Amino acid sequence: MKLTDFQQIYEKYLQENPFKGSPKNLYDPMNYIMGLGGKRIRPTLALIGSHMTGGNIANSLPVAHAIEVFHNFTLLHDDLMDNSNLRRGKETVHVKWDNPTAILAGDNMLILALEYLQSYEGPNKDAIINIFLKTSREVCEGQQNDMDFGLRENVVSESEYLHMIEQKTAVLLGCALQCGALTGGINESESLEYYDLAINMGLSFQMMDDYLDSFGDSAKTGKLQGGDIKEGKNTWLKIKSFETNAEISGELFKISSKERIDKVINYWRSINLDNRILDKAKMYRDKEYLLMEKIRSTGVDCSVLENLSDLLISRQH
Amino acid sequence: MKLTDFQQIYEKYLQENPFKGSPKNLYDPMNYIMGLGGKRIRPTLALIGSHMTGGNIANSLPVAHAIEVFHNFTLLHDDLMDNSNLRRGKETVHVKWDNPTAILAGDNMLILALEYLQSYEGPNKDAIINIFLKTSREVCEGQQNDMDFGLRENVVSESEYLHMIEQKTAVLLGCALQCGALTGGINESESLEYYDLAINMGLSFQMMDDYLDSFGDSAKTGKLQGGDIKEGKNTWLKIKSFETNAEISGELFKISSKERIDKVINYWRSINLDNRILDKAKMYRDKEYLLMEKIRSTGVDCSVLENLSDLLISRQH
Repeated sequence: MKLTDFQQIYEKYLQENPFKGSPKNLYDPMNYIMGLGGKRIRPTLALIGSHMTGGNIANSLPVAHAIEVFHNFTLLHDDLMDNSNLRRGKETVHVKWDNPTAILAGDNMLILALEYLQSYEGPNKDAIINIFLKTSREVCEGQQNDMDFGLRENVVSESEYLHMIEQKTAVLLGCALQCGALTGGINESESLEYYDLAINMGLSFQMMDDYLDSFGDSAKTGKLQGGDIKEGKNTWLKIKSFETNAEISGELFKISSKERIDKVINYWRSINLDNRILDKAKMYRDKEYLLMEKIRSTGVDCSVLENLSDLLISRQH
Repeated sequence: MKLTDFQQIYEKYLQENPFKGSPKNLYDPMNYIMGLGGKRIRPTLALIGSHMTGGNIANSLPVAHAIEVFHNFTLLHDDLMDNSNLRRGKETVHVKWDNPTAILAGDNMLILALEYLQSYEGPNKDAIINIFLKTSREVCEGQQNDMDFGLRENVVSESEYLHMIEQKTAVLLGCALQCGALTGGINESESLEYYDLAINMGLSFQMMDDYLDSFGDSAKTGKLQGGDIKEGKNTWLKIKSFETNAEISGELFKISSKERIDKVINYWRSINLDNRILDKAKMYRDKEYLLMEKIRSTGVDCSVLENLSDLLISRQH
């Protein structure tokens, strides 16, 4: 089976299983956000995990779907919390409907994610539910940390930042691959390698994402170069910049948002931050590969997982 | 065991099990809303249900707590959706903190409710989780129906209204008593009588609540007489008023909000709505008692449940 096969299996399941229920004002926004598209990385990871450990993919679909529904619930509520008007070029739910609808539709998606999980019949059901709930909690904690950091006067440390992005991005990838692998009936301690692998995949992805935002070619990324700098967002680059020279960095970030972009990028190049973040991304990717080799050495075919990892890093979104 | 014993057991458990976690800005509002008090009807119902069927009360506490945490999650998000500034005389979470915090703290409470449920070890765990999730979904649907009704141009029908209050209020009481009863190891079909009993208790309570709002003694209820009329809220009384005479009712509700209160109350007395709603409340209470008798006839002691029901109707909140 190829990577696209896994993606298509999930897409087909998604098309055939829209949310059904009443009232319409509650269920329409839920189907709307699920229909906005995306690469479906998380459910695909879950299905790949299941296949790697000899699980029955059809049986794993409710687990994969629960994770994608949860992910979309976080997008829905995050858009409202962050006041974002657009997602994938379309109006966000709280703009197209209203704030109360966005809150409630998100709440209901979280409940339905659990109902999908609860409908799973196969090995390790209890462990899967526990991992899913722990992960969900960590994602909430990560979002709160992110919001707290945005309001903080003093500087966020590298370890605080890495912990936050691990919670906000990486743990759900870890959960997806681990829970998928658990549907194949491996034991919980074995499944931890799958979790760690996807955690490192997520962190590497995040570093590349930060790299591309400042040093990427906007014609290729499709985004404004230096968007994070303009917003003054806490990123690994900004943290390392202040660590290297707080005075210069402070002065640069006092410049009005649009004008600072080029100056900050130039400064960051001068202190080699472009290469340092690529090294950091590579460090996580090396860890990911090491874990992949370990799993491969037990006779498991990791080729599709490798393809997904490449897709994630090369396409970036 | 007396009613107060059950209440005290839960209060003690609550005190001994505050939410623990980081960041503080996420967990403080969660503990804040749990600490605002209340009669703890739902967890008490769950513990009574457990005791009635011979369950181990200590084992049932996580189930009781999950239901109370879920209830407080709905209060937290409802306050934000309804723009309410006060709850039990204290600032609501979105006022004391901010909207994003209220959204996220609520989300995390829903997740933790499931974690408590998942930590339950005893009979019927799967059934309890399924009932809890189905109920949670219905509560969301009820809240959306309530919001939809508030914006609707045409009149809400009695059956739509009753369905909405069943979802918003009664099903969680039903879930509490039923899940509690299931912890004692009875089978699911037997547990339905417990569910139906508490549903009727909830509906009777809601009718009495509506009655007292318009016809109660504000010195006793502690609330402005006619608050619902002032707000133009959809209630059973308003629906029946329009059913009886849409023209007169329409004219009365065109009067400015404060001045309409006395006129509406007088009109409602003139068409006997005060007695009709008491009859309706009694009808539900009779159904509740019939189910209680049925359960009692199998040798189950219903006295504490009866006390709780009396407390609910007499105290009203």
